[in-house]
This record gives sequence, C-alpha cells and structure tokens, in this order.
Amino acid sequence: MSTWGEYVVEADPPLEGREVTSMSREFLKKRIVPIDIEEIDTISGILSAFNNTSFQSRNLARCVEIFTKMLEDPDEPTIFLGLAGAMVPAGMKKVISTLVERKMVDVIVTTGANAYHDLVESFGHYHYKGSPEVNDAELYQRRIDRIYDTFGDEEKFRLVDEKIVMLADRIRAENSGEAVMSSREFLDQLGGLIEREGREGEKESSFLWNCWQHKVPVFVPALCDSSIGLALTRHYINSIKKGLKPLVIDQIRDNHEIFEIKKSSKKTGVIFIGGGVPKNYIQQTSYLEETFGARNRGHDYGFQITTDRPEWGGLSGCTFKEGVSWGKDKHLGEFVTCYCDATIALPLIVKAVLERLGNAPAMKRRTER
Amino acid sequence: MSTWGEYVVEADPPLEGREVTSMSREFLKKRIVPIDIEEIDTISGILSAFNNTSFQSRNLARCVEIFTKMLEDPDEPTIFLGLAGAMVPAGMKKVISTLVERKMVDVIVTTGANAYHDLVESFGHYHYKGSPEVNDAELYQRRIDRIYDTFGDEEKFRLVDEKIVMLADRIRAENSGEAVMSSREFLDQLGGLIEREGREGEKESSFLWNCWQHKVPVFVPALCDSSIGLALTRHYINSIKKGLKPLVIDQIRDNHEIFEIKKSSKKTGVIFIGGGVPKNYIQQTSYLEETFGARNRGHDYGFQITTDRPEWGGLSGCTFKEGVSWGKDKHLGEFVTCYCDATIALPLIVKAVLERLGNAPAMKRRTER
Amino acid sequence: MSTWGEYVVEADPPLEGREVTSMSREFLKKRIVPIDIEEIDTISGILSAFNNTSFQSRNLARCVEIFTKMLEDPDEPTIFLGLAGAMVPAGMKKVISTLVERKMVDVIVTTGANAYHDLVESFGHYHYKGSPEVNDAELYQRRIDRIYDTFGDEEKFRLVDEKIVMLADRIRAENSGEAVMSSREFLDQLGGLIEREGREGEKESSFLWNCWQHKVPVFVPALCDSSIGLALTRHYINSIKKGLKPLVIDQIRDNHEIFEIKKSSKKTGVIFIGGGVPKNYIQQTSYLEETFGARNRGHDYGFQITTDRPEWGGLSGCTFKEGVSWGKDKHLGEFVTCYCDATIALPLIVKAVLERLGNAPAMKRRTER
Amino acid sequence: MSTWGEYVVEADPPLEGREVTSMSREFLKKRIVPIDIEEIDTISGILSAFNNTSFQSRNLARCVEIFTKMLEDPDEPTIFLGLAGAMVPAGMKKVISTLVERKMVDVIVTTGANAYHDLVESFGHYHYKGSPEVNDAELYQRRIDRIYDTFGDEEKFRLVDEKIVMLADRIRAENSGEAVMSSREFLDQLGGLIEREGREGEKESSFLWNCWQHKVPVFVPALCDSSIGLALTRHYINSIKKGLKPLVIDQIRDNHEIFEIKKSSKKTGVIFIGGGVPKNYIQQTSYLEETFGARNRGHDYGFQITTDRPEWGGLSGCTFKEGVSWGKDKHLGEFVTCYCDATIALPLIVKAVLERLGNAPAMKRRTER
Repeated sequence: MSTWGEYVVEADPPLEGREVTSMSREFLKKRIVPIDIEEIDTISGILSAFNNTSFQSRNLARCVEIFTKMLEDPDEPTIFLGLAGAMVPAGMKKVISTLVERKMVDVIVTTGANAYHDLVESFGHYHYKGSPEVNDAELYQRRIDRIYDTFGDEEKFRLVDEKIVMLADRIRAENSGEAVMSSREFLDQLGGLIEREGREGEKESSFLWNCWQHKVPVFVPALCDSSIGLALTRHYINSIKKGLKPLVIDQIRDNHEIFEIKKSSKKTGVIFIGGGVPKNYIQQTSYLEETFGARNRGHDYGFQITTDRPEWGGLSGCTFKEGVSWGKDKHLGEFVTCYCDATIALPLIVKAVLERLGNAPAMKRRTER
Repeated sequence: MSTWGEYVVEADPPLEGREVTSMSREFLKKRIVPIDIEEIDTISGILSAFNNTSFQSRNLARCVEIFTKMLEDPDEPTIFLGLAGAMVPAGMKKVISTLVERKMVDVIVTTGANAYHDLVESFGHYHYKGSPEVNDAELYQRRIDRIYDTFGDEEKFRLVDEKIVMLADRIRAENSGEAVMSSREFLDQLGGLIEREGREGEKESSFLWNCWQHKVPVFVPALCDSSIGLALTRHYINSIKKGLKPLVIDQIRDNHEIFEIKKSSKKTGVIFIGGGVPKNYIQQTSYLEETFGARNRGHDYGFQITTDRPEWGGLSGCTFKEGVSWGKDKHLGEFVTCYCDATIALPLIVKAVLERLGNAPAMKRRTER
Repeated sequence: MSTWGEYVVEADPPLEGREVTSMSREFLKKRIVPIDIEEIDTISGILSAFNNTSFQSRNLARCVEIFTKMLEDPDEPTIFLGLAGAMVPAGMKKVISTLVERKMVDVIVTTGANAYHDLVESFGHYHYKGSPEVNDAELYQRRIDRIYDTFGDEEKFRLVDEKIVMLADRIRAENSGEAVMSSREFLDQLGGLIEREGREGEKESSFLWNCWQHKVPVFVPALCDSSIGLALTRHYINSIKKGLKPLVIDQIRDNHEIFEIKKSSKKTGVIFIGGGVPKNYIQQTSYLEETFGARNRGHDYGFQITTDRPEWGGLSGCTFKEGVSWGKDKHLGEFVTCYCDATIALPLIVKAVLERLGNAPAMKRRTER
Repeated sequence: MSTWGEYVVEADPPLEGREVTSMSREFLKKRIVPIDIEEIDTISGILSAFNNTSFQSRNLARCVEIFTKMLEDPDEPTIFLGLAGAMVPAGMKKVISTLVERKMVDVIVTTGANAYHDLVESFGHYHYKGSPEVNDAELYQRRIDRIYDTFGDEEKFRLVDEKIVMLADRIRAENSGEAVMSSREFLDQLGGLIEREGREGEKESSFLWNCWQHKVPVFVPALCDSSIGLALTRHYINSIKKGLKPLVIDQIRDNHEIFEIKKSSKKTGVIFIGGGVPKNYIQQTSYLEETFGARNRGHDYGFQITTDRPEWGGLSGCTFKEGVSWGKDKHLGEFVTCYCDATIALPLIVKAVLERLGNAPAMKRRTER
C-alpha cells in the first residue's frame, strides 16, 4: 500500500485500460534524433528538429504544431490570445501586430500595461535598453522608470496620459455627457486615437492600431490596474470636481461581449503568453458556458508559454489538464505548455508558423470574415 | 573595460561613496549563528533564529521584522494587503481573518477567486484534499473542479452563484432600478450577504465577513475575472433580456476610492502574497500620486512572498528596488522579498508577529479608528 | 483523438482500474481545514495543521509524516541523507548534527562545500551575514568570499587548507608512503582531525565531528570539486615535486562501500536536501542492485526539499515517480517532494519530528547498532 | 535610514563614482527596437535582433556576442564547456560535437550521464520520445527508464555496461595488473573504445569520439556518480573477488591536469550549460590559482544557460558577479546569464555563432594546436 499525494494505491500496478495499451505499443518507437544545426538553415527547420529532441525544446516544437493545426482546421476555430506581462516595452509589439495582420489571432485579452506602452510608442516615444544593476533612486531622480532591464521616460508618459484624459472627455462629450462602455470599446477608441494622432511610421506597427484596423477586439479586463486606468482616474477626479459624470468602464459588459464570441464559435483555440488575468479570463469563457448548462464546450486547442509552475496552486501556472476538470479545456483537445521566457519563445513560434504556412495560407484564412 | 548587462564599467573598481564605506565597516561583523532547534520551542523563536541564518530563511525572518515595525510605527501606517492566488481554498482563510480582526491590515486588494471561495465556505460548503495526479476527465464527469491538489464541488458552486445573482438583482431593486458601484462596494454587500445568510459557525472565519464587520475595505479590481464576475454576467444577461439595467461595476471608481485612502495616509506599508493585479494595484497607488505631481510618496514598508522572479520582466516578480524608480516605493523604506510558497510562509509570519506582540499590542493598534 | 505530450488518447475517458476506483470513493471526503494560528503554539502543531491545507504547506506536512514513518518502521530502514548546496555556511550545521546525534539518519552523502565549511567553523572561524547587493570587486580586494547573502573570510580559509594538506601528508606517512582511500575514509579522518585540533565549544556542533563520533559514514563522491579537493591538489603537487606518492581518493571504492550498506539494508529511506551529486548518488544505490539482477530493491520512503523542477530534465529536479521507472524507488513506497528553500523547510521538519517523537523514541532507535 | 538586505543605507542617494556617471550619459540612448520577424530569415538574424529587445531574449543575444568575442580574441582564450544535466539523451549530442569539431571549445567538464548516454548511442542504441504522463511502475516492468519525457532501453544499457567493465579489465591487463588514472584518461579510453567498437554512421556524431579525435580533454569529476561509475563498481567487485587490483580513478589527478591547462592559458572563457559539478569544477580552476597566491586570474569571458536562481544560495544558480568575490571571474570580464532551458538556447546560440563566423574563421582558430 502506498500513497502518492493523498491517494492510496493498492498493491498491484494499476490497470489503465486502453490508454496504456496504446502507449505500450508506442513505448520505444519514436527515436530521439540529435539535432544537427549544421544541416538546418531556417527557423522553422530548427523548430521541426525540436520535435525529436527533449524537454522544453520539444514542447516549443509542439507549440508550432498546435498553432499550425488551429490555423488549418477547416472548422476555423476562434483563436484567443492572452497576453500578460510587459511584452510591448520588451520589443514584442510587431510580433503581436503580425499575428493580427495575418489573421492568426481573432481576439486579444491583455494587460493595461501592454496597451499603454503600445500607445506610448505609437505617439513616437520609445523604450530604452537598461539594466537591473542600477541605482533605482538615481533613476527616480532622473524620472526614468525601470522594467527589469528596460527604461521608460516618465516625462513622455505624462504626455500620453494627457491624451487618454482628453479622449475620455471627448467620448463623454460625444455621448451627451454620459458614457458606459466595456474595456473593449475603450480600447477600440484608443485604436482610433492612434489612427488620428499617432506618429506616421510608428503607428503602423502598433498592435492596438492593427487590431482597430482589422477589427480584432482587445479586452483589458483589469483596465483600472494600469497607467490607462490611472489616466482615467484623473479624468474621474476632474469630472466629479466639475460636477460631470465620468466615463464608466463596465467590466461585466466585457464578460458579455467575450461570451458572445465564445458561444458563437464552433471551436476555439487559446494562446497564453504568461498568466494573470488574460489567461484566466480566456479560460473562464468556456467555464461560463458550463455554468449556463452547456457541456463539452472547453477549448479545442491551446498552447502556453510560461515561467510559472503548477505547484504553487495559482491560475497563472496551472496546466491545461487542470482546466479539463473545470470544463475549460477539452479532454480530447490538443494542448502543450512550454516553460520559457516569452521574449525568446514567441518570436520563434510565430516565425516558424509563418515559414511553414508560406504566409499565403495564413493570409487566406477567414478572409471572408 | 567590461560590460555587466548593458553598461560599460571602467578599469578601476567603482567608488561607491558612503554606501560602501558603511558596508566595509560591517563586512565581517555579524556572524551566521547556526540554528539550534533543540533549544527553540516557539514559532517566533524559530523566526528570530532565522535572522542569523542565510538565504530565504533570513528573508522570512525579515518579513517578521518589517511587519512588526509597520505595526509599531507611531505614525500608524496604513497597511495594504495584496492577496493573489487561491489562498482561501488552500486553507488560508482564517489567517487572513486574524489579520483583519487584530487590525494588522487596513485594506485588502485581492482576486475574485479568493472572495468567491470564501463565499462558498461561508455558506457551509467545503473544499477538499485532492491530488494533481488524477484523471481530470473523470473529475469533469463527476463535476469536481481541481485547483492543483485541492478539489471543489461544482454543484455547490452553482448554489453560491445563484445567491450572487439574487444579490445583484436586489441591489438594483433597492437603487430604483439602476446601480453603479465600485468592486469595493459590491464586496461590502457580499459581506452583508454572509452576515444575513451565511452558516453560523462558518461565517465567523470568513475573511469577507470579518472585513465587513471591521470595516476593512476589500478591492477586487478584476472582479469580472472570477466566478463572481461570471455570476454577474448571468445577472447582466438576465437583465438585458428583461429590459432591465444591469448592475455596473465601475473599475475607475475603485481607483478613486483607494487613491483617497493612500493620499490621506501619512505612511503606508504593503504586503504582497503573490503578484498579479493585487500587487500592481497597490503599487500604483503611490505612482498615481506621482502623476498628480507629488514626490516621495512611495510606500514606506513592504514585504512580499513570491515564487516568481524579476528576470522575466513581469510585475508579479519585480523587486521593490525596481518600484523605487517609479516612485512606488521609497528609496529609504524597508523592504524584503521572500521566495517561498505562501501557504508555508504566511502562517509562520503571522503567528510569529502575534507571539512577538503578545496579541495585546496588535489589538490595541488603531482602536480609536 | 487527442495528444497529451506524445501519446494518443482515445475518445473514451481512460479506465484506470482499481486506482481510480479507490480514488472515486475518496474524492470529496477529506476536507481542507483552514489553519487557525491562534489555536496552535508549537511547530509540530503548525506542521500537523498543514496536513489539511494545500499546495506546498501540505507537502511540507507530508515530509514530517514520512520522516516519522521511517523512524518508527520496525524494520529499521537505513536512512540516507543527501545534502547538497551550502547548508553549513547558511547556519544549518546544528540541524544536521541533531539528525546525527539522535540517530535520525544513518548515512550522509554531501558536497565538499558542506564538509569544508563545517571544518572552517570547527577550527573556530565563522561565516558572516552579508548581502547580494554588494560590489564584488570590493569584496575580492578585501579577500571576502560571497555565497549569495553570506560572507567568508578568505584568510581563514587558507589556514584550514593548510590543515588538510598536513593531514594528507600525515596519512601517507602513517601508511608507509602510499595510501588509497575512499572519500568516506578521508572524511572520517577529517572528523578525527576536528577531535584533535578543533576548537572546544565549537567542534561539538560540527556535523563531521558528530558523524565521526557516532560512526555515521559521510560520502563526498565529488570531493575533488571543493576546497578540500583543492587542498588535496596542493598536497598532490607538493608530493610529485618531492617524488612522493600523493594520497589517492578512489571514487569507486566509495561506490563499493555504499553499495554494501544498501545491499545489507532490509529497507531504506532517503532524504534529499537539494539535488546534485548527493541525490543521484543515493538514488543510484538501488539502481546498482538492479544492474546486478535484483528486483524491487528501490527505496521504501523518501522526501525531498528542492527548488528545482522536473521539466528541465535534470536529475536534481526529477520526481520520485520518475525514479520508479529505473527501480530506484519503490512503486508502493511513500514519497513526497516539497518545493521550498531548505533553510526554511529543514529546521521546521526536524523540529516537528523531534516534538512528535518526544526526543526519547528517536534516541532509542537502533541503540544496539 | 533604510535597510536593503542587511546593510544600512544613509539618507542621501549613494554616489557611485565613475560607474554611474558613465551610466547616466547612456540612460536613454539605446532604444528598444521591436523585433520584426517578417524581415528576418536567419537564426543569427533573430539572435541579433534580440540584442535590442528585453528580458531573456536580450541575454540570449549576449551569449552569442560573448561567445563570438571569445572565439575572435587574438589571445586565444582556452574555452571550458561545463555540461551538466542529460543533454545527450535529449538530442544535443551533435551540437556538442559541432563545438568540438569546429574548435569552439577546448576542454569539456561534464556528468557521467552525458558521457554514458553518448556511449549508448555510439554503439547503435537509441533514446526514445516519451512522456512524463505515464505509469512509471509499468515502465519499470517493461524495463524502460524515464528521463522526464524521454525513454531509455534498460536491456541495451546492460550491454553497454558490459563493454565498460571489459574496458576496465583490459586497461588493467595492459598496465601489468595495476592502473591509477584520472577520469580524463578514462574518458579518453572510452573515446578509443568507440573508435574500435562503435557503430559506423553513429560514432561520428558521438561527442566522446569527437573529443578523442580532436584531443579535447573530457573531465568527469564525479564519474562514480553515473552508470559508468556503476559499471566500474562491477569491475571493482569482480576484481576483489578474484584477488585482482581494481582500476583506480584518482579524482585529484584530474584536478592537477585541469589546473595545468588553466595555469598555462593566457586567457580563459567559460560556458556553463546548467550547474552542478561541471560548473563549480571549472569555476574553481581559477580559485585554485588564487590559493597558490596568484591574483586576477579569474576567467575573462563567460556565459551560462540555467534554470536555477541565485537566491537559494547554491553554486548551480550563482551569478558570475558572485564569482568575482572569490577571484573565479574577472571583475572586468564579460559575462552573461540567460535563464532558459538549454535544449532551446544551446542550439540557437551555436547556430548563430556559426552563421556569424561563416564557419571558416571558427575552423581556422587554433589549427596549429
């Protein structure tokens, strides 16, 4: 008698039916093939070779496989991208824009940070290479904000804040002094702002602008928790001082909107870059269907790039397998987790998929939409 | 010439002024004292001994030191607790309630998950010991939801959802068919719901109920991203079907409320259990003051328990030192990060502080409030 | 059809025989019990309460359970402690000594670093509290060596090195100019050296001295990879310059010795503090029996404290479950992994076991040996 | 007054002399350049673009920069590769062989596991793609050994063990019944064994064979801690049963050998794939010179790929900066740590360097040796 975790395991090795039987046949059939980098010249070539190596390189390869399957599935699954962290100041903006332009994702759920820093760059400001080995008190005095090894220019941030405040004022004015909107609607307004006031040559690589352009909805469920939220707080305080009604961002309206997208999708695929609210928010769309009585509406495909782990019990690090118990993900779907920093994994995956699909097929996908 | 990270370091070892001078005097003065567990019988005794050991045990000891300082500071800093993850289903509910009852925290920012699972237990339902080594498809069929090694009972969850929907309906009715509120206000309503309908003998250990009882505000900035948010979505859909106005959770109203608390606090201390929105949301309160032109209003004290790391560039894993550059934390404040699972670290820290303060002093604190 | 990892899973949920059946009965039976720190005053009390919480606190509690079972098993399993890292400079020396004195471990496999720094302290030198936020070039100039947040005094290290060189010279002389020994034998000699030349009042807490005193063998399979190994290199170079035969540390002799201990043990328990060579070296003792044709000689009990993870494919982070495939660990044994810094977990576990066994039973164990 | 870690920081922001001055000039000069994967077609192109992104992608790019500098330094630094983990069964064998063939490394320090699994494949056996989601008891019954997601064939392992035993017997016979050798010498013998008995078409990609062919020394300081060590234990037991002297692997002889290489090198570069003994063993070569009275003989260049972290205090996760305090690494050297799974990072780095150096220059390097 033994206990692995909490459960008693009895003396005989467990019978596991068809699963193990099919496994046994396969046990020693698929060889590891040592990667020969002298023979490979493309990114998709490296990623294909990783299918036959081990550990996280193999999981990275499977991200490419699963992403390709999502894109080639004739049922045209709706693809949700959950984008946490600070990917935009880290230089990942154009990769997201590529995903949008080439119709490789249909819905984005992200943090206010990614949206805000995209705005910053759209107006012609920049982020800078820095280092974590600095005197942060000195940075504070110089009004430089640090994101690990990356610097931002606090004075430029103030200029962007001002634009957000003015946008909120303008939206209210255009709505007869009262406006309630989802974060998705506000993000769409920010896309329009970039179109009008963004710097030429920069705005084209903005992911917000591309989403606006290609009608890809962007949800920021915790919009208040970001510099955009702080600018809206300034708008809020200004408004109540003047006796005006501030713009209201109605969280639950977002839930309704994304639910409608999920419900009307025959199939769905999910991509999680990091965890946090974006991951959970996408996971809960299928769970929401469960609470309305639907069954087996979990996501069909998924891959996640994370540096978190399941053993701390948080949602950010949890496995797709755990999601199966909730009905968030389908037992018979295809999923993989790759443990890697997203600034390495994401560009490689997207490039490999592009190469593999020859750009054209991806372009063709859902053109009729 | 050398480069550590991005920067050029010139040939002589850098002069570092007073900092290094004061360090040099101290270099080999404070001995490591091997911990002698046979001589120690209390939790606070172990934690004190950890002051003179190394690595994360020393950081854990410093959490106790800094928490004690916050509580004993005659300027009575406002203490913000950021509580991410799924601490309630993990059995940490009473530890939070102790912090609230004993006035050891003044404001809580948390996830919808913690609030929801607290509700579940307040109505007399439970969470269960499970294992990650299970067949999740089988769990799905049995309507059991898994959180790593912990199980929830989906059918009971539905009962709780229903109560949330009815509460939202009721609030609307009481507000002449239209209500806009902050998440903080809604959480307060949930506290009242537990008071009215919670199970006797269970509700007393609910942290939401204790916060309601002791007027400790609870913010859930991403309320939509949780089962509470999903229940409100059901309310939303019901409402629009019936032509009624759904309850609106106004995120920015929360920002205004917490900003008022921060602004009126002479000093502030922060406690981060995990990262995510709760951590960032508390960090940005002082940054918001910055954007209004204030200077040096960063938090004065802080400790965080995390299993994330700074090198991925996300806010969840960032250091207090990084926060200094933004003005979120004071350069001259006292801060420590302990890398540890919170289910181990949090009970130890709270118990050690209670023992050290003899319960009484902590009770006395801010009684006049 | 689906693929989790590499394997095809067919459409029906897998049948898993008795294992799942026994699980199903139990699914929602064992409640999570929120820990009430106001009701608990002992370390063993906290650790018992952790049996009914979640995540790593529950795993920590299981370490205590499994350690207790090992000690109370009437078959008196031989207990191997694998001790990696730099636990001694971190202040964990006396905890190890307690384990030895109270007969809670029978064999230690460790790094040269732990042995060396134990030596340093036995001769009356110290380690010091430092910080990772220092100028390491300045430390180098001051001849201070840093181990994360802990400092060592390079000049004192030289004095200890000299003693090791002289010991090696003396052993050769006592063996007619030629000596081949296992690391275990050399470590025993170092224990004798501490007895003769260690500082009174310090040597009593040395784990090497306690092992020498209680005849607990200490293996350092990678002895060359440490300051002890460097001192022996000095002896080697001196010797060949003088035309003398240097002392030989024969690795394979160690293998034979530890194999004899394993082979003659009815049962075995293993404790891994960190990974590295100490963990693998203990794991391979049962695998060695396999290569000689034995079956089912895997370890019976085990717990490991680690901050590594399985997904990188290294031995340090691997699970006991993986060890089952090799025959290193018994399928029906009892094992748990707790992800935690050992400087926190180890003292708590040992104290809780001591409290639970009332010291006396542990003392009584195997007194006849 | 404040304390970061242990040290008191006084009220003014610290002056940091020339370092900060040079930093200030640079603060906001180097822009983050969003990577545009549609414009890049080569691996070296991606890696160059990563120089201007953030987080671990930038660190990965710096590995390429530093490796290139090592190879182009006219002082021809000796390059030590520390290779931990189980890189060979993971399919990384040919990458190592490429490094050897193209003279991109001069010395290898590795684990017995890497050497053993290279042997296995050299004799025409294979490793297989597996999954961590399997029943390990079933694997045990089928004599399949699991390394995370990779399977080995126990029966084939036995055949390889037999060859090692016979080699040891043969070496003894050739040395008149008595042999003492370093691990380096034994590994060279294994290279010769592959030459004689390895399978054609397979042996050419063996890293041991390539090292033998190109006279690149391979050190396995903890040889006993591996299947090679276990085979030598079988030889040991056979020998003593027959009254013969077993082959002795003398650890300290290895120390002397590698010390001679280090001492005679004008400059040195280090590459650490994972931590463990290989990393520390290479680090201590310069420390050994220190203990002989040399100063400033730390390594000049280094990069490490790791998934460990410094905050646990172990050597595996420690920074190069920490190594500076010991004299292991030069304060003014160039070093970078990239936190990533090596199965992803290593092939990318090596490919990028090859592309950049056009293969030819790397080939030319040190041809006269």
